[in-house]
Amino acid sequence: MSITQSLSTSMISSSSSAFLVPTQLNSRLQSVSLQPKRVGLCKCVAAPQEEKIAFKTKVSRNANLTKLQAGYLFPEIARRKAAHLLKYPDAQVISLGIGDTTEPIPEVITSAMAKRAYELSTQEGYSGYGAEQGEKPLRAAIATYYRGLGIEENDIFVSDGAKCDISRLQVVFGANVTMAVQDPSYPAYVDSSVIMGQTGQFQKDVEKYGNIEYMKCSPENGFFPDLSTVARTDIIFFCSPNNPTGAAATREQLTRLVQFAKDNGSIIVYDSAYAMYMSDDNPRSIFEIPGAKEVAIETSSFSKYAGFTGVRLGWTVVPKELLFSDGFPVARDFNRIVCTCFNGASNVSQAGGLACLSPEGLGAMRQVIGFYKENTDIITETFSSLGFKVYGGKNAPYVWVQFPGQSSWDVFSEILEKTHVVTTPGSGFGPAGEGFVRVSAFGHRQNILEACKRFKQLYK
Amino acid sequence: MSITQSLSTSMISSSSSAFLVPTQLNSRLQSVSLQPKRVGLCKCVAAPQEEKIAFKTKVSRNANLTKLQAGYLFPEIARRKAAHLLKYPDAQVISLGIGDTTEPIPEVITSAMAKRAYELSTQEGYSGYGAEQGEKPLRAAIATYYRGLGIEENDIFVSDGAKCDISRLQVVFGANVTMAVQDPSYPAYVDSSVIMGQTGQFQKDVEKYGNIEYMKCSPENGFFPDLSTVARTDIIFFCSPNNPTGAAATREQLTRLVQFAKDNGSIIVYDSAYAMYMSDDNPRSIFEIPGAKEVAIETSSFSKYAGFTGVRLGWTVVPKELLFSDGFPVARDFNRIVCTCFNGASNVSQAGGLACLSPEGLGAMRQVIGFYKENTDIITETFSSLGFKVYGGKNAPYVWVQFPGQSSWDVFSEILEKTHVVTTPGSGFGPAGEGFVRVSAFGHRQNILEACKRFKQLYK
Repeated sequence: MSITQSLSTSMISSSSSAFLVPTQLNSRLQSVSLQPKRVGLCKCVAAPQEEKIAFKTKVSRNANLTKLQAGYLFPEIARRKAAHLLKYPDAQVISLGIGDTTEPIPEVITSAMAKRAYELSTQEGYSGYGAEQGEKPLRAAIATYYRGLGIEENDIFVSDGAKCDISRLQVVFGANVTMAVQDPSYPAYVDSSVIMGQTGQFQKDVEKYGNIEYMKCSPENGFFPDLSTVARTDIIFFCSPNNPTGAAATREQLTRLVQFAKDNGSIIVYDSAYAMYMSDDNPRSIFEIPGAKEVAIETSSFSKYAGFTGVRLGWTVVPKELLFSDGFPVARDFNRIVCTCFNGASNVSQAGGLACLSPEGLGAMRQVIGFYKENTDIITETFSSLGFKVYGGKNAPYVWVQFPGQSSWDVFSEILEKTHVVTTPGSGFGPAGEGFVRVSAFGHRQNILEACKRFKQLYK
Repeated sequence: MSITQSLSTSMISSSSSAFLVPTQLNSRLQSVSLQPKRVGLCKCVAAPQEEKIAFKTKVSRNANLTKLQAGYLFPEIARRKAAHLLKYPDAQVISLGIGDTTEPIPEVITSAMAKRAYELSTQEGYSGYGAEQGEKPLRAAIATYYRGLGIEENDIFVSDGAKCDISRLQVVFGANVTMAVQDPSYPAYVDSSVIMGQTGQFQKDVEKYGNIEYMKCSPENGFFPDLSTVARTDIIFFCSPNNPTGAAATREQLTRLVQFAKDNGSIIVYDSAYAMYMSDDNPRSIFEIPGAKEVAIETSSFSKYAGFTGVRLGWTVVPKELLFSDGFPVARDFNRIVCTCFNGASNVSQAGGLACLSPEGLGAMRQVIGFYKENTDIITETFSSLGFKVYGGKNAPYVWVQFPGQSSWDVFSEILEKTHVVTTPGSGFGPAGEGFVRVSAFGHRQNILEACKRFKQLYK
């Protein structure tokens, strides 16, 4: 293609593009003269494939991002699943990997979203920008969950999901904090910490980033860290019921954790995204622990309760009692970040969230959760009957299966290769996850049963 | 309230909370023994108001956030509007301030959202996590807008809005880049830069942050910066049609801007959120300029086209040709941030976005935009007839009215006090906005007419 051809193609196409260009533009474009400078620039656009790196900017790549290892865990698993499907195009692949909900959203919830969508077409029902912190009725409804725990409506920030809020919290904290995580843990904590520049380089020998305190959670300590060996950090990420181990901390353990944070002047970021899966009598919220409001933030989500993984809705509680060392409320800085870097969750999603918290919505959510908990029992029994040590499951939709002495990625690959079932390698959640595989209970019943049948064939 | 009372209130309330706690929990909670440690901690929870600062963590506040001046502009305006309503509870306040859309979303778009919401209640229609980058059909539909410009589906990242993507781009760039902005400009560029640590302190005398290059855009230079006086920076934020001035850069000006970025090895972040408002024959996309793919990112949004300010949907184009100085594609780092810090836009919103780009949706959007453009004409004519110098309006839904020698905030206050109309003070967009007020054309027709009537009474 000649330079002139390329240029005119670009121009004609631009004018025939359906989206933004007004219909009367054709004639105007034809009168634009070809200036020498533009022809010169155009050369780069039309450059052939092999000369693709025609130009590099002088902007240095963010050094923090160069520290990140490979891809974020779940896209990496998606990549391997796709590669497997290429290899076995006819395989009936079952995904018990990324923890994605599979059951339809109860109609009481979707009809509220549909109603809100329709209302947006009416003068009375239309609304534009909402409060960045979320709509008042939804904040109030979420606050009722914390009733009696001293959490108020204005402590609650509605979001487009816990993962997004974790990153916004990291932006609040900035580069100069230290952080601790349960090992293993949901990779967004560590990765967002690396991105913000809080960490050192990845140390291949120990599979850890420098300057992160990894709090080992293993069968030996009942999946609760030995706090006497944990160094003081500014921030402590703590997820209970835990993803991936499925372990839920007891009231007594959380009381110790809060005391540990108080002693150290640390801030706990408590992820309770799986609280509704709890069977045992453990706290559903960190704020059930007296004094927690002065040391903790809690983040949660409708994703795993209402099947909102694609609808996107969550919330974060930042109590006004939580203060930085200079006495400045953390909530005020979080509010500033929410207002500047975010514009609120979708109003349609928020209508769905409000319906979730109605009596009918709560009942419907509990039914779906009950279904996934039955799945969890089926998976747990399968691996137990095969002689594996199995953890989690009781208080979370994840079963944490031990494969002593084996590499998690090897086990992941063997299971995928021989059963066409996608799991998640434990080491993807941290070095203490090595030798484990996480099996998600999110799936249609026939798929769970089929996957378990294949597990039994593989490991009989 | 005694300590024991407080504790039991907390416990009872927690157990009676509707949301997460199972119904059979009451009896269990009653058997929990009171441990001395918990009673001690509980004191802080029950502490009276005047002892509220009972505890400070040892976590230092992020120094970058301490640099930020007051609140983010638009919440600050909302605060002043609320204060005005308190003072004049019966006033008929008309808001032409924050640029919030007011007209209902065309039914062809909302019915697609409602349909998608309903489908989420069916086995066949349910979907969980979508691709973080957006659903394939929507990415493809957006790509057609760039048809012939060499932008492909996988260069497009669907988002929950341009403002959110600006922050995610800043996270990609990190602390060690320098940046330039048009002065005046949409405050999210500067504020997100401050938050990431790219700037120095705010210098009160010049009303600028250190280490930001403010590219003055005024009537004197036709609202296009004199690039010969602009220092080289890594990043150049450029919005056209511009918010707040309403000025749209010509093809010749944008060609110079792209050449300037090439010469300096800079990256342009081009905000085209108002492109569909263009009346003149200027580029709708920076990628209409040959060579721009090697130096530019473009971010845009459905907010001002389809009334999606509350629905939340936008997109960002990061061409694969755009490279850091080491040859690493910017798109790969942006993809990593999108995957780690974001989980995709709501699937219901994306269904709405796809409907926007259907022939019927495009037609409906153009109608709404046409309506707002009529509003713009009414406002422009009003201020012109009153003898003001008026800019913008023709290519954007904003009218930029000059009040020579006056303070923007004073004018804002006077207009609010005497006409009950909320505008936006120009200085909120940067020091070169001083002496201007931005009047938004988003409003019901009767409100626009009423506001203009009041302006005429005030300034006759």
